[in-house]
Amino acid sequence: MPGTRLRDLSEGELLARIFPLLHGTTGPAHVHLGPGDDAAVLAAPSGAVVLTTDSMVRERDWRDDWSSGHEVGRKVVAQNLADIAAMGAVPTGLLIALAADPRTEVEWAVELTAGIAQAARAAGTPVLGGDLSSAGPGTIFVAITAVGDLAGRPPVRRDGARPGDVVAVAGTLGRSGGGLQLLLAGRGRTHLDPRPDAGASPLERAVDELCRVHRTAGEPPFAEGPRAADAGATAMIDVSDGLVRDLGRLARASGLRVELSGRALAAEAAGALTDALGADEALRQVLSGGEEHSLVATFPPGGVPAGWRVLGACVVGEPGVLVDGVEPDVLGWDHFRP
Amino acid sequence: MPGTRLRDLSEGELLARIFPLLHGTTGPAHVHLGPGDDAAVLAAPSGAVVLTTDSMVRERDWRDDWSSGHEVGRKVVAQNLADIAAMGAVPTGLLIALAADPRTEVEWAVELTAGIAQAARAAGTPVLGGDLSSAGPGTIFVAITAVGDLAGRPPVRRDGARPGDVVAVAGTLGRSGGGLQLLLAGRGRTHLDPRPDAGASPLERAVDELCRVHRTAGEPPFAEGPRAADAGATAMIDVSDGLVRDLGRLARASGLRVELSGRALAAEAAGALTDALGADEALRQVLSGGEEHSLVATFPPGGVPAGWRVLGACVVGEPGVLVDGVEPDVLGWDHFRP
Repeated sequence: MPGTRLRDLSEGELLARIFPLLHGTTGPAHVHLGPGDDAAVLAAPSGAVVLTTDSMVRERDWRDDWSSGHEVGRKVVAQNLADIAAMGAVPTGLLIALAADPRTEVEWAVELTAGIAQAARAAGTPVLGGDLSSAGPGTIFVAITAVGDLAGRPPVRRDGARPGDVVAVAGTLGRSGGGLQLLLAGRGRTHLDPRPDAGASPLERAVDELCRVHRTAGEPPFAEGPRAADAGATAMIDVSDGLVRDLGRLARASGLRVELSGRALAAEAAGALTDALGADEALRQVLSGGEEHSLVATFPPGGVPAGWRVLGACVVGEPGVLVDGVEPDVLGWDHFRP
Repeated sequence: MPGTRLRDLSEGELLARIFPLLHGTTGPAHVHLGPGDDAAVLAAPSGAVVLTTDSMVRERDWRDDWSSGHEVGRKVVAQNLADIAAMGAVPTGLLIALAADPRTEVEWAVELTAGIAQAARAAGTPVLGGDLSSAGPGTIFVAITAVGDLAGRPPVRRDGARPGDVVAVAGTLGRSGGGLQLLLAGRGRTHLDPRPDAGASPLERAVDELCRVHRTAGEPPFAEGPRAADAGATAMIDVSDGLVRDLGRLARASGLRVELSGRALAAEAAGALTDALGADEALRQVLSGGEEHSLVATFPPGGVPAGWRVLGACVVGEPGVLVDGVEPDVLGWDHFRP
């Protein structure tokens, strides 16, 4: 029903459109009671649960002319699953709170739900329930709560790094931030653009990849979180506000300095990022690009799991992050500052 | 710092103002890891958790000229704790997602947090973490996720009522809805009004009470949820959208008809509600007033716990709610409808 808006349906009619999209996400054995009652009931066989919440706001965290509802749904789930992974946990459930202008098209809410369901299904995570509210003109707010299980492992905190530990990353750096720069510069690809065809140039493919990661969060390496925990990671965080900023949090929590290698960072900037942005901007995005949702962790020397790439090391010193001994000139993201 | 706005502080500075307010809510023994990391870790000793989310939106769920930030904080927590109680569970933790216009006064966010903390402390429930986002002009959105524990009990669902069961309520009915009517009519008391003094008339005290319940949710009987479960409640729901509407959900889920007694409902309408609104409107609010967050449950005959008041019974019949055999002419709340 194109053109139908939320105000044209009762809450029950809207839920009747949305619930079937969650099919296949709500029924694993560890869900004792799924959506539809006052609350859901989830098994926590290891006797503990990991909990986090992360939100996206229209016109702040996405633009409708860049991102589809489906892409927003994938991204907001990814942001939450990355926080679960960064503790060394496996996701076990999601809750959704949606507040939307009643004039919002029903089709957009359906797409959002389909995106959430796709990301949930890919992670083997059930959607346990949610909440619908109306909001003021133009406003759409999506808050997700994610629940996870540590399977008896201790959580991998931010404050456990020790001098001598190696700093490594799983997943990419700077691609989401690079995509944002391209979109802001009018060089990006939106959900409305046609896909590049098979004959697209390396530049076109690079631009497409970066923008796609910005719009959807791509496929962050969630499974590497529990894997890092099993490998003995001493501290871990996901890259949500930029590598330097997030590693700075880990450094301050652990009371040590993180020394990054300029050469290792340059290697991270090579490929699509440099193709699309040039070397300087690519490096800047590696250091400061947010919303990548890759995982950075510290490991005892010799303990870095296969597939993780070493970026530097932890040393005794004033807490902070240096690149080749110098404080990098980058800033991450701050919510309320212009 | 009156006049300071969110945009004047960094996220870190704002968190530094907010975290101390949560003191005493974040440290119970069952919290393995509180706010400040990628995610929190909460013990779930019974091997299962109860999960729910409920939100409030400025200008939709509250008006600043009626309700203070502190009152909004208390109310949004109460809404969530009622859902936990309605499953027969005890709350074990809360998460907060706040999205606000950067021009929002810091003092408002501080008050909101203090109200959340007060309600959390009263319920013995820790605040485990949260998320901050900026939002468009005038927008404030508060989503809470509540976690609970069943201590090994089966959850009390909506679909377990049986013909012959007795329907009973714990807590009041219609007061929040009555307060809303008074405020809409310009007869209400807002957070800006002076309190009635000791010599206030019964009418003034009644108006004050109803409006206070509307603004804060009052003190819903959360502890009666687990008590009802222990007493053998077959089904339970909290009154969030109105007694008839919420009991209708229970009736449909259980596949039976709920017959309410007009005399019992009239008794619920007596007192402050009738003093402030007159008998007819008082009864209408008992039937349809939302946001009361009292608990209605069904019990086997003879099984109603002390303190619960009998309103009617479950019978074989087309699912729905009748009062003295007649369908009541009331509607509850629907989010997206004008």
